[in-house]
Amino acid sequence: MQVNDLLKQIEFIKEIDKLKYIQRKTKLFNSDRHENDAEHSWHLAMMVLVLAEHSNEPIDVLKVLKMVLIHDIVEIDAGDTFLYDTTKNHVNTEEEFIAAKRIFGILPPKQTQEFIDIWLEFEEGKSNEAKFTKTMDRLQPILQNRSNQGGTWTEFNVSYETVFEKVKGMQKGSESIWQYTIAELNEAFEKN
Amino acid sequence: MQVNDLLKQIEFIKEIDKLKYIQRKTKLFNSDRHENDAEHSWHLAMMVLVLAEHSNEPIDVLKVLKMVLIHDIVEIDAGDTFLYDTTKNHVNTEEEFIAAKRIFGILPPKQTQEFIDIWLEFEEGKSNEAKFTKTMDRLQPILQNRSNQGGTWTEFNVSYETVFEKVKGMQKGSESIWQYTIAELNEAFEKN
Repeated sequence: MQVNDLLKQIEFIKEIDKLKYIQRKTKLFNSDRHENDAEHSWHLAMMVLVLAEHSNEPIDVLKVLKMVLIHDIVEIDAGDTFLYDTTKNHVNTEEEFIAAKRIFGILPPKQTQEFIDIWLEFEEGKSNEAKFTKTMDRLQPILQNRSNQGGTWTEFNVSYETVFEKVKGMQKGSESIWQYTIAELNEAFEKN
Repeated sequence: MQVNDLLKQIEFIKEIDKLKYIQRKTKLFNSDRHENDAEHSWHLAMMVLVLAEHSNEPIDVLKVLKMVLIHDIVEIDAGDTFLYDTTKNHVNTEEEFIAAKRIFGILPPKQTQEFIDIWLEFEEGKSNEAKFTKTMDRLQPILQNRSNQGGTWTEFNVSYETVFEKVKGMQKGSESIWQYTIAELNEAFEKN
């Protein structure tokens, strides 16, 4: 039984290697090189480790780590959705749910269920852990764009108002990180 | 105080982006593309999440995650050491320790100390968590090499005996994963 589970787990480990090929719109710091989803997920996990104390509410750090590590795995099938894409609404799409069932479905049933539940909790964005994960997921590209002369904001001609609308939910995860973010955005868009 | 800490933490988050440029000798699954340290660290973290139950001894999963996420950060300064490098011994080198102090030193003092301690615990390899982390760190390139017609073993003409010597410590982390590994190595080197 345990051997059978191990073989399923190894199969899953091989499958998710594909996340390293999913390219994001954003680029590495001070760089012209696009980031991929695996690197992005590692970076978010590190951000959780160092920034957890700034969460507004108490959080289960292990759960937040699970969330950031798996949050983009559905993109292996569904592709990356750009935050400022005006043609596609970034909500929990049917396509992503099918992807979650296929990919997490490679694992033994208990783990399949656990991962789908965590991913859905993230998408829903209501728990303290999901709010903090989303704050990390918004903060990272802001830092990247700041280091790249506006990055995707400049490239896709995104206005201050649009950015503000997309990222204001960060305040629900962390007031102090939100204050920092607002100052950064004001400077980037010369609002002061 | 907290704002000052946040600025240090953000500085650290920017600095460790460099891990995405540190290239490993191993290549992605069924691929010719080299893996970088950030992707590798994400993959190990996912392996911990799905394989933790196979640890010989009870482990603190959060601590193991911290370990895999930070274990290669010193390579930003010290570079990647190839497991089968015959000219450089992979032990806790002075160079890596200096790197740990510089990079983790960007963080607020409490976190600097925590990260250095975890990294040293990993390098020492004695705790249950360090043994399991090392098992993950050995298993991943074995899976990659198996998918790439021998990968670095073929490329650098590494013998079965040398591989065995380098990876046998995996048994200390997980007996069931070690049994799987031995079967894979025997097949790769046609030992059956």
